[in-house]
Amino acid sequence: MNKLITERLAALRKEMAKINADAFYFSGKDPHASEYLADHWKTIPYFSGFTGSAATMLVTKNSATLWTDSRYFIQATEQLEGTGIDLMRLRVEGTPTHTEWILNNLNEGQIATDLSCLMLDEYEDLSDELMLEPFRIIDSEKCINNAWTNRPAIAANNIFELEEKHCGQSRKEKISIVKEQLDDEPLLITALDEIAWLFNLRGSDIEYNPVFFAYALIDTDRTILFVQDGCLSTDLVPKLKSEGIEIGNYHSRDKLKDFMSFQADFSSTNVSLNGYNMIQIKANTGFPPGEHIFVDPFETNVVEHQASPIKALKAVKNQTEIENTRKAMLKDGVAMVKFLHWLDNNIEGERVYGEYELVEKLNSLRAEQENFIGNSFYPIMSFRANGAIVHRAVTKETAEPIEGNGLLLFDSGGQYLEGTTDITRTIPIGTPTAEEITDFTLVLKGMIGLSTVRFPEGTPGCNLDVLARQALWQYGLNYGHGTGHGIGFFLNVHEGPQSIRQDYNPVPMNAGMITSNEPGIYREGKHGIRIENAILCKEWESNEFGKFLEFETMTLCPIDKRLVDKSMLTKEELEWLKNYHELCYNKISEHLSDEEKVFLKEICSEL
Amino acid sequence: MNKLITERLAALRKEMAKINADAFYFSGKDPHASEYLADHWKTIPYFSGFTGSAATMLVTKNSATLWTDSRYFIQATEQLEGTGIDLMRLRVEGTPTHTEWILNNLNEGQIATDLSCLMLDEYEDLSDELMLEPFRIIDSEKCINNAWTNRPAIAANNIFELEEKHCGQSRKEKISIVKEQLDDEPLLITALDEIAWLFNLRGSDIEYNPVFFAYALIDTDRTILFVQDGCLSTDLVPKLKSEGIEIGNYHSRDKLKDFMSFQADFSSTNVSLNGYNMIQIKANTGFPPGEHIFVDPFETNVVEHQASPIKALKAVKNQTEIENTRKAMLKDGVAMVKFLHWLDNNIEGERVYGEYELVEKLNSLRAEQENFIGNSFYPIMSFRANGAIVHRAVTKETAEPIEGNGLLLFDSGGQYLEGTTDITRTIPIGTPTAEEITDFTLVLKGMIGLSTVRFPEGTPGCNLDVLARQALWQYGLNYGHGTGHGIGFFLNVHEGPQSIRQDYNPVPMNAGMITSNEPGIYREGKHGIRIENAILCKEWESNEFGKFLEFETMTLCPIDKRLVDKSMLTKEELEWLKNYHELCYNKISEHLSDEEKVFLKEICSEL
Repeated sequence: MNKLITERLAALRKEMAKINADAFYFSGKDPHASEYLADHWKTIPYFSGFTGSAATMLVTKNSATLWTDSRYFIQATEQLEGTGIDLMRLRVEGTPTHTEWILNNLNEGQIATDLSCLMLDEYEDLSDELMLEPFRIIDSEKCINNAWTNRPAIAANNIFELEEKHCGQSRKEKISIVKEQLDDEPLLITALDEIAWLFNLRGSDIEYNPVFFAYALIDTDRTILFVQDGCLSTDLVPKLKSEGIEIGNYHSRDKLKDFMSFQADFSSTNVSLNGYNMIQIKANTGFPPGEHIFVDPFETNVVEHQASPIKALKAVKNQTEIENTRKAMLKDGVAMVKFLHWLDNNIEGERVYGEYELVEKLNSLRAEQENFIGNSFYPIMSFRANGAIVHRAVTKETAEPIEGNGLLLFDSGGQYLEGTTDITRTIPIGTPTAEEITDFTLVLKGMIGLSTVRFPEGTPGCNLDVLARQALWQYGLNYGHGTGHGIGFFLNVHEGPQSIRQDYNPVPMNAGMITSNEPGIYREGKHGIRIENAILCKEWESNEFGKFLEFETMTLCPIDKRLVDKSMLTKEELEWLKNYHELCYNKISEHLSDEEKVFLKEICSEL
Repeated sequence: MNKLITERLAALRKEMAKINADAFYFSGKDPHASEYLADHWKTIPYFSGFTGSAATMLVTKNSATLWTDSRYFIQATEQLEGTGIDLMRLRVEGTPTHTEWILNNLNEGQIATDLSCLMLDEYEDLSDELMLEPFRIIDSEKCINNAWTNRPAIAANNIFELEEKHCGQSRKEKISIVKEQLDDEPLLITALDEIAWLFNLRGSDIEYNPVFFAYALIDTDRTILFVQDGCLSTDLVPKLKSEGIEIGNYHSRDKLKDFMSFQADFSSTNVSLNGYNMIQIKANTGFPPGEHIFVDPFETNVVEHQASPIKALKAVKNQTEIENTRKAMLKDGVAMVKFLHWLDNNIEGERVYGEYELVEKLNSLRAEQENFIGNSFYPIMSFRANGAIVHRAVTKETAEPIEGNGLLLFDSGGQYLEGTTDITRTIPIGTPTAEEITDFTLVLKGMIGLSTVRFPEGTPGCNLDVLARQALWQYGLNYGHGTGHGIGFFLNVHEGPQSIRQDYNPVPMNAGMITSNEPGIYREGKHGIRIENAILCKEWESNEFGKFLEFETMTLCPIDKRLVDKSMLTKEELEWLKNYHELCYNKISEHLSDEEKVFLKEICSEL
């Protein structure tokens, strides 16, 4: 039995009883629907022990149930053991959603939740599904605060300015573009990376994401930035004010009172923002259980959904951002090649290294690079069968030794003042098997297939995804994740609105977007293979058939030739690999020691 | 000036004045939204002279405006010359839709239309857009009847039964499957090919489509087929009745009175079917012009939209249909090879042939095949620059001579008791240019790319479309039509619900579906190239990565080697071509004369 977790759940249930709640719902989010959570909002890790990045949880008087997706089935099974928490495998046939579970298992009652962590779009869905049932949602962050001993405070770190030589466009220009796009109503911006981008500010309130807790409101004649007191340095405050930007308080948001109504993106706007503290839903409000027990915050009509226009602006990098990203990619490539060289010298020696030590080694090499700020996500370093657990995050405790033959997969990235990187390479330790070589070569063919495509303007990523998969499909293989996600500029390593995946996403790939290209293959109990580069979408040619775009590979780091079956590559694919390795050598070699240079020359030589 | 058309429009306007109509709207459809129109419903061709397959038209007191899409811009420009009818180019920037045009050009008034040719989904859109404007829709088929001297009667040809050896499943089984899928309400089936499929009946009321005018109603305990009197033979009536099928009258539909409400697919159900003659909208009903002038037939609530379940059932061919289609494909291939042989002997001789003569020759060769019923659509036979006019339908009058060098594109198909075919080949007359060869080879690469893909179950066609385009895209080329449409079994040559195109269509490619694979390239003023085969989706392999599907090429007819640049093909593509030509030779040769056999051997020999 997991005593720690059962005690924490008991404390929560005690608080639930106080407010007469039959269930407590954890949305798994912070107030901005951030992908990564600051410690203060790691409620599901605290109350369940599950640390995966996507989960929801429902705790009732005598049960606890956690929902997560296939990426985390193995991890959740392990981490929930002994907690008494039931695991629900999302999108597996027969798994009820949490609303279905509520309808099946509870007849009526009050469901408590922290409404400041419930987004308006999820609230809409919940309302739709539970509206006619005898349930009532009640707001209670207090349950969490009281049950969570020593809950960490909300991070409130220093906010700093990104110089125009790095970001390429003044916030004045950016804000005026947003103002031009305003649709009558003022716009409340709630996603942290959108605020950071718009104001050319960065922070460190969330690990890996250089953002800070804030809201922003843009109206025709007003621009308000809501931040935590003391986070803006004393010279930044007057500077922003001199540009006409008002500073408001993140927690009180008093200035919102000036606005009757506003628009916001419901996917990142929490219920408690529906107007200035307009939410009437409080614990024990005494609403009678009945038909319309979900008090509908939309009735107040203060917030209207408007997909954020900033996503699309932010996704298209300007020339300065592109040039800087090239620099960041070069630094990252230098660190990666140094790491490959170090591995080559050390990994098969007498001293046996563990996966976590390799993470530390790679971190230290990135840290040597100028303007390196930190990792862009928790690095993945997986040997042999561990590589097949797609989102496995190795720790000191779970690290396994690198001993004997097997594939090593590492997926990591850095935050530099000049941009964000995200790269995966897979290399053989010892002698690779025929299956490993075939698998790797198929993944490589897919990666090259997507890298080299040219396509008409307006094509969405979902129409291109097959190019990264067709070689694998031909062998009856596939991978269960998307092929590409947008990458921020010294911002979040995952950003929208574009993507390259099988699921429908109508957003076209536009010139200036930087997207990952990361096909893979995962054989349970055997190995995981992934090759990931960042690709820049660029204009190629305009003619009577229209305007065509193409990709430029930005990531610089050789691909391991020992895993490539030359006979499986077309002459175009061989040509691509040759050119790519030449490019890597030409760019990276001058930043290496003589010994490293020799090593790079060898690994970049022709197949 | 086109006197014929202006006189016809004048006659229409006289009728419009009688019912006080400010405009007459032609939806361009028959009462079933059939793709091809029977003569009776060729109203737009009659009143405008435009014969393309997709158009809408609005005639006011002093203007006439016709909307069509890019496939028909050139043809419409030519055919509308001198008629005074304005051409609106759909989906070209700045072109108003017909509702926008109405809002811009008419302030208020009565818009007459034949509601029996207006589908409920279009009516919904019209209502949405015009609801709040001072317009009223009034129903008047009479305008057309009175203005159209000698309007052809509605075709009412003999309906015949398709034997189970041809269609593979009894109507009893089919109907019981549909009954199982009923969703409380009875289902009204309105699409003619769905009715023909469900009842294993065929007709000839519409050219090229072996269907008959009918409706059908399926309820848990009743099955009613509404047909025109006298169309069912005297032995079919008792046979159907003995199977529990009631026969109703197509025109009166009296038996519909027995049902309070029903479901129907709004995309093929016309407004006049909204309940049993429940439509209250008549000319001069005296509704005051005002806010709610669109009388909403939905208020009666007798029809609910339900996407027809029959589309999906019909699209997946059973084993008998598949085996029979193979036979139809072989017959078609024999006719095509005989045609190619005839061309080879005759086309560059002293006697100069015109495009239309070649159509007649090909028709006659198909007609020699057993169980040939007719063409599956109007054949395309286009020499040189004519090939770039994608949907050009050649006539005796517009036929051009086949003289000198150039590409000949022919797209045609047959209806056989054993299935429907659709094939396009492009061949060189004389010596092809380097550009023609490159273009053709790129199209071929795309065609092979789609033919050879394997993919996981659940993949929609839009995720595969790029495979047919990527080779062209790589050269900055593209084509403006879809890559693939479903093909019926001795039914319509175009059917849903699956498609292979860039536009989003979530319907997955399922085993048993037959779809066309027809990339092309069109250079205005120069040439058109298209290669089209029918491909059958089949199960390939199931393993730990899921269930995979693949395509089998069903069409049998060699691809012209004289247009293939061998150096541009991969070894897999060359292998595919070699195997395909071997298959063609092995299947077709035994049905040829010795001389034809020698010819086939030669054109099927290795590159």
